[in-house]
Amino acid sequence: MTDGLQCVAERALSRSLSNLNFKLHASKDQRTMLEAILTESRAATGAEAGSLYVAWNGKLKFVAAQNDRMNASDIDHLLLGEEIPISMESLVGFVTLTGQAMNIPDTHRLPEGTPFRISRRLDTRTGYSADSILAIPLRCPNGERIGALELFNHRELDGRQSPFGDEAIDAVTTLASTAAIALHNAHLQQHLREAHLDTILCLSTVAEYRDADTSQHVQRVSRCSELVAEALGHNADDVELIRYASPMHDVGKVAIPDAILLKPGRLTADQRKVMERHAQIGAEILGNSDDPILAVARGIALCHHERWDGQGYPRGLKDLAIPMHARIVGLVDVFDAVVSHRCYKEACTLDTALAILQEDSGKHFDPDVIRAFLSVLPEVLKSYPALKAA
Amino acid sequence: MTDGLQCVAERALSRSLSNLNFKLHASKDQRTMLEAILTESRAATGAEAGSLYVAWNGKLKFVAAQNDRMNASDIDHLLLGEEIPISMESLVGFVTLTGQAMNIPDTHRLPEGTPFRISRRLDTRTGYSADSILAIPLRCPNGERIGALELFNHRELDGRQSPFGDEAIDAVTTLASTAAIALHNAHLQQHLREAHLDTILCLSTVAEYRDADTSQHVQRVSRCSELVAEALGHNADDVELIRYASPMHDVGKVAIPDAILLKPGRLTADQRKVMERHAQIGAEILGNSDDPILAVARGIALCHHERWDGQGYPRGLKDLAIPMHARIVGLVDVFDAVVSHRCYKEACTLDTALAILQEDSGKHFDPDVIRAFLSVLPEVLKSYPALKAA
Repeated sequence: MTDGLQCVAERALSRSLSNLNFKLHASKDQRTMLEAILTESRAATGAEAGSLYVAWNGKLKFVAAQNDRMNASDIDHLLLGEEIPISMESLVGFVTLTGQAMNIPDTHRLPEGTPFRISRRLDTRTGYSADSILAIPLRCPNGERIGALELFNHRELDGRQSPFGDEAIDAVTTLASTAAIALHNAHLQQHLREAHLDTILCLSTVAEYRDADTSQHVQRVSRCSELVAEALGHNADDVELIRYASPMHDVGKVAIPDAILLKPGRLTADQRKVMERHAQIGAEILGNSDDPILAVARGIALCHHERWDGQGYPRGLKDLAIPMHARIVGLVDVFDAVVSHRCYKEACTLDTALAILQEDSGKHFDPDVIRAFLSVLPEVLKSYPALKAA
Repeated sequence: MTDGLQCVAERALSRSLSNLNFKLHASKDQRTMLEAILTESRAATGAEAGSLYVAWNGKLKFVAAQNDRMNASDIDHLLLGEEIPISMESLVGFVTLTGQAMNIPDTHRLPEGTPFRISRRLDTRTGYSADSILAIPLRCPNGERIGALELFNHRELDGRQSPFGDEAIDAVTTLASTAAIALHNAHLQQHLREAHLDTILCLSTVAEYRDADTSQHVQRVSRCSELVAEALGHNADDVELIRYASPMHDVGKVAIPDAILLKPGRLTADQRKVMERHAQIGAEILGNSDDPILAVARGIALCHHERWDGQGYPRGLKDLAIPMHARIVGLVDVFDAVVSHRCYKEACTLDTALAILQEDSGKHFDPDVIRAFLSVLPEVLKSYPALKAA
């Protein structure tokens, strides 16, 4: 018994689900908005170029840059991700730290006693020289300063270059605070999204603890379900959903007594009935949240033992009445069980497993899901290194 | 065995943790910002009053309102939460649906063929009459319109009332899109926060399934921990944290075999060692997230069996080295166990329970936590109706 626990505890230590490579959505909306703010700020002030910087881990990072003299991909390539220390020695650092807007009419002649220098490092790299600069702090509604907006090289309507007028500061202050709000919110949203996914990961980890023979099972089911969803033409968001949601398909097993869950031999009819309740209980645990991950996970937990021909459980749903995600996980789950060694059976060979799936196409399984599964089989088999050798 | 499962499944059906009354933070920052946007919009246009409306469940809702002629609490009382149908028949509905800003110089003389009417319903209620109105759609960066900004009664510098000029529309368009971004983000954040709390609730529900005798246990521990934290002077955020985090204190029990977890008699020394691993395993399940709820829950799971005198497990931490939240939950958990009937023991009376706690003050328990617990005892006992009768 202690050994069983040992094994179970080692699973937790490996925290294997982190291998699922949970990724965060970068918000396209936020990016679009920052570009729009830069465009509007340049239009309002007649600036040839502009950059937005945001403070992050003690550095100022470029988050958007535009330049009429350079093409966009060069800018992204040369500047995005660049970092500047937050110190009084750079102009953006000074503006961020003091909260003071600065109008530099001629970067080549800074007044005596100016605390910062104009770095030429990036000018050298881009081949673009900033002669006049307007730098505005990004200020949140609570007064916090989270970065700076820099505008470069004021152009008159006739194209001549001249210093920025001080009225330009007013013209972009509201735009700068809009950028500050957007960035602040992006930050908050990222934290919340991470917190949510971290909690999903905890729940997936719990689900591993009661799974019969292996912690790798939920990882493989997650990875293979994702592959099948992709092959079926699901979009990227939906593929991500099934990746996060599928590891919880057996969470209802927390409620199944060891004597049944871990029984080496065949279950009696009564025991099987008890065992089958894990589908319903899993759905109950996953609650009635509107959250897309939990909602998909609930459908999978409830319906991953339904069969295409209506002979499954708990509700005997038939073909398209079974949620698509559950049809995918149902197939992948059976494949994994068939090719795995379990306490009550030996592992089958790949050929036998495929024969079983084919035989059950249109009976146990959705034929479309089988076809999709077979189309990604080489990729699927990467999760089963031992199987290839067999 | 089937009966045991039955009982466990009923717990899930009751989904009792929803009684914990999870609540959402209303964002103070968002509110402050909407007020600031209204203030700036009024200043930029010389408007005596203004309101922000946002579309929500098919209605337009007031989310902020200001009026120089009324005091703020009257405005909140009379207007906040008011709803207007989203239809072409109201000015805000028209502006929201068409995305077209409207300048109404005289609300008492709308041009022939105007599709909307100016409702006097709220004027009647507030005693304030809007003679000129400027209405601007709230437009997100993606073009979506999510509500409207209305400004009322333009005042000249000398105080005379006159219509808004059309240049006022330009003056507030950027402010209106700032408001749109803020509201859109508030909405996204609320969704993400709900998703996170829903998932925390799932995890708490899982924790209930393996708990020895009662699903009410985690609810009582949560409620009483919250009361003790309050009595210790913790701030509202921290009290909320312990409410959400404490139900997961025994989640590590998912890894303990039934034969030990559900054993009616005393555990052997070896069995006790296995049982004690639930603290460490619980912390491992809860991962290494930065999320405050999960971080606090991890500390509680790991340390709720530590003792003030250093004789606890798993690490033998002493007094202040034990996280405060774990000291609170540790006490509340023992109190709950002592006064509850368990499969291996009868419930103690309240007097006996209190004597045990007092006796263990400074040994098992933090004396400050005991004092705080006793100071809220009447409130604590509301979670133990049977105990009062005993």
